[in-house]
Amino acid sequence: MKIHGQLRRSIEADHSKQTAQIIDQTLLPHHVEWRELSTLEDAAEAIKVMRVRGAPLIGATAAYGMFFGLRADASDAGLHQAYDVLHATRPTAVNLRWALDRMKRTVEPLSPEKRAEAAWEEALAICEEDVKTNHAIGRHALELFREIQARKSDPDAPLNVMTHCNAGWLATVDWGTAISPIYQAHDAGLKVHVWVSETRPRGQGASLTAFELKEHGVPYTLIVDNNAGHLLQRGLVDVVIVGTDRVTAHGDVANKIGTYLKALAAKAHDVPFYVATPVSTIDWTIADGVRDIPIEQRSSREVTHMPGLTDQGNREEVLITPEGTQARNDGFDVTPAALVTALVTEHGAYPATAAALQELQAKL
Amino acid sequence: MKIHGQLRRSIEADHSKQTAQIIDQTLLPHHVEWRELSTLEDAAEAIKVMRVRGAPLIGATAAYGMFFGLRADASDAGLHQAYDVLHATRPTAVNLRWALDRMKRTVEPLSPEKRAEAAWEEALAICEEDVKTNHAIGRHALELFREIQARKSDPDAPLNVMTHCNAGWLATVDWGTAISPIYQAHDAGLKVHVWVSETRPRGQGASLTAFELKEHGVPYTLIVDNNAGHLLQRGLVDVVIVGTDRVTAHGDVANKIGTYLKALAAKAHDVPFYVATPVSTIDWTIADGVRDIPIEQRSSREVTHMPGLTDQGNREEVLITPEGTQARNDGFDVTPAALVTALVTEHGAYPATAAALQELQAKL
Repeated sequence: MKIHGQLRRSIEADHSKQTAQIIDQTLLPHHVEWRELSTLEDAAEAIKVMRVRGAPLIGATAAYGMFFGLRADASDAGLHQAYDVLHATRPTAVNLRWALDRMKRTVEPLSPEKRAEAAWEEALAICEEDVKTNHAIGRHALELFREIQARKSDPDAPLNVMTHCNAGWLATVDWGTAISPIYQAHDAGLKVHVWVSETRPRGQGASLTAFELKEHGVPYTLIVDNNAGHLLQRGLVDVVIVGTDRVTAHGDVANKIGTYLKALAAKAHDVPFYVATPVSTIDWTIADGVRDIPIEQRSSREVTHMPGLTDQGNREEVLITPEGTQARNDGFDVTPAALVTALVTEHGAYPATAAALQELQAKL
Repeated sequence: MKIHGQLRRSIEADHSKQTAQIIDQTLLPHHVEWRELSTLEDAAEAIKVMRVRGAPLIGATAAYGMFFGLRADASDAGLHQAYDVLHATRPTAVNLRWALDRMKRTVEPLSPEKRAEAAWEEALAICEEDVKTNHAIGRHALELFREIQARKSDPDAPLNVMTHCNAGWLATVDWGTAISPIYQAHDAGLKVHVWVSETRPRGQGASLTAFELKEHGVPYTLIVDNNAGHLLQRGLVDVVIVGTDRVTAHGDVANKIGTYLKALAAKAHDVPFYVATPVSTIDWTIADGVRDIPIEQRSSREVTHMPGLTDQGNREEVLITPEGTQARNDGFDVTPAALVTALVTEHGAYPATAAALQELQAKL
C-alpha cells in the first residue's frame, strides 16, 4: 500500500544483497524508518522487540531469518540453531511456528550447499502467498461491503466501516486482512469512511491503523474504544470488520482485547460483524474458544504507562495512574461464533458454524 | 473518605475565614494539592478548568461561589452577576443550574445585608444534604451487594465489583454515588475487590477512582475499558455499578461514554448492572434517552493526546496518533432501561421502568 505516496510492502526483499527491509514499527506513527535485516540476529531482534508484529509479518520475517541463518551456517546444527533462536522470540505466535516449520521442511532434505538458496526462494514464496491471500480476502469482503452499501437509504453516503486494532498491511506483507477490503473499496472508488478504534492498551488502532489509512488517503476518524457502542446505537456504523489471532473449528474467534464488546454491540444493533481470516488461522483442533484458547497475560505497565510524542518532538512514556497501581492486562478476548456474521477467508465468506467450516476444510 | 490516612471531604468549609478548600483534581493522581477558594472568581475558575468535577461537587462549589459573590456585592445586580458568571462555566451541567437556582431562591427575597450569611448557610446545607444522600444510596446498594455475596459459591472470595469513570467521593462532597457502597462494604469488613475501568479518553477511572480507592485502602485492579467483556465472560465480575449524569422518566441512563458497552456485556452474562443515582438526577420531563438526551461532543485533542507523569516526574502531554489525526469524542452514551437491573437512589432501589419511577416520584 502507499506510504509517502509510494507503493510499498511492510517487508521488502533486496534481491541484489539478499537482505530484507522492514519499517521499524516501534517508531510509528511518529517516525517512518526503514531498517535492513541481514543476519539471523537482526531478524530475531526485530520480532522480539516488535519492530515487526502481526502474525503474517512475523512469519515472513522469520522466514528471512531462517535464510540469514543458513547463509551463515547451512549445517544441520545451523538449521536447528536458526529455528530455535527464531522460535524463542515469540513462542506463542502460531504463524511464526508455521513459517519456521515450512522453511525447515523445505531445506532439511537438501544438502547444505543448496539450503540457503532454497530458503531465500521459500521466504519470497511465503511473502507472495501472503499478499495473494490477503488480496483474495479483501476481494470477498468487498463484495459484502457492496451489498451493504446497496441497501443504504442514501446511496451517496460513505460506507461506515468500524475496525479494531491493526489488521492492516503493517500486520501482513501487504493489504492486511480486515483492512484489505477497505483499501480495495477505496481504490475502486467506493466511498468509504473508517471508524478507527484506539485499541488500548497498546493503541494499535490510534497509531498503526490511523497511520496506514492516512498514508493511503482513506478517510478515517479515530475514536476511543468506549465510543463503539454509542456509534452503533446511533446508526453511524454500517459494518464492523476485524482480524483474528485464532479461529476454532466451531467459529469462535480470538482477537485483540475489546473485540468481544464490539461484537456484542454490533449484534444488539443488527450490524454485520465480519472476521477476516486466512484459512491458516483456523485451528481445526479446538472447538470451544472460551474454554480452549489460552489468553496471554501481558504486563501491567502497558496499561499504566502511555508512550507518545511531546510537544517538543521527544518520545516519552508517561504514567497515567497513581504510583504503584496494578493492572490486569489480558491480551485477547474470545468472541463466540454466534456473534460473528461471517468469516471471510481467501476462499470466500463462510458462516461461523462447525458445519460451514467443515465444508470449507473439505475443499482445502 | 480517607486521604493520606485522614478523613476528608472533597470540598471543606473553613468556618472562621468563610472560605472553601478543594483538592485541585487537575493535578491528581500525581499530586494532592489543596486550594483555597475565597472569591466568586476562584469558584468559577475551579469549575471551568475542572479543578472540581462531578455533578454534585460542581453544584456545591457553585453554591460557595454564590456566597463569595454576595459577600463582595449583595445587591440584586451582584446576585445576578454571580449567578451568570457561575452558570457560564459549564452551561450544560444540570446540577450546577440546580444549585444556583436554589441559592438564588433562598437569598433573593432577603434584604441585601442578610444575603451573604444566608448564602453561607445554604451552601453548607447543600453539602450536608449531598453527603447524606450519597450515604443513603450506598446503604441501599450495600444491601444488594450482600445478597449477591450470599449467592457466591465461595463465600470467602471477595465480591468483585466493576465500575466505570469516577462516581466516587471526588465527584461529590463525600462518599460518592456508585463508589459509596464499596466504601461502606469495605468499612463493614465485607471483602470487596474493584475492577477499575480506565475510562478513556480522560481516564477518570485510571486517575481518580484508582486514587480514591488506593487512599482509602480498598483493593482494586485497573483494566483498560476493552477488558470489561472478557472479565464478565470469565465470571470474574459479580456486579457492575456506575453513576449517571441523567436518568429519564422511563429509566434510560446517560453516563460516561463506554457505560453502554459494559451494560451490554453484563446483560450477556446475567450480571447485575446497577446505576447509583440521587433522585435529583432523574429528569422527569423526558422518556426516551436515546432520542432526547443531547450528547456533548468534546475536543479531538482529548483522544489524540494523553497527559501523564514522565519518569523524571514532570507532567507532560504526549501525542499518541499520527499528526493531524481527527477524533470524534462523544462525552456520554445512553444505556437503555432494559439493560439496567435497578436504579439505586437515596430512597432505595427501583427497577428502571416508567411504572416503578412513577411510584418513586409519587413518594417524593
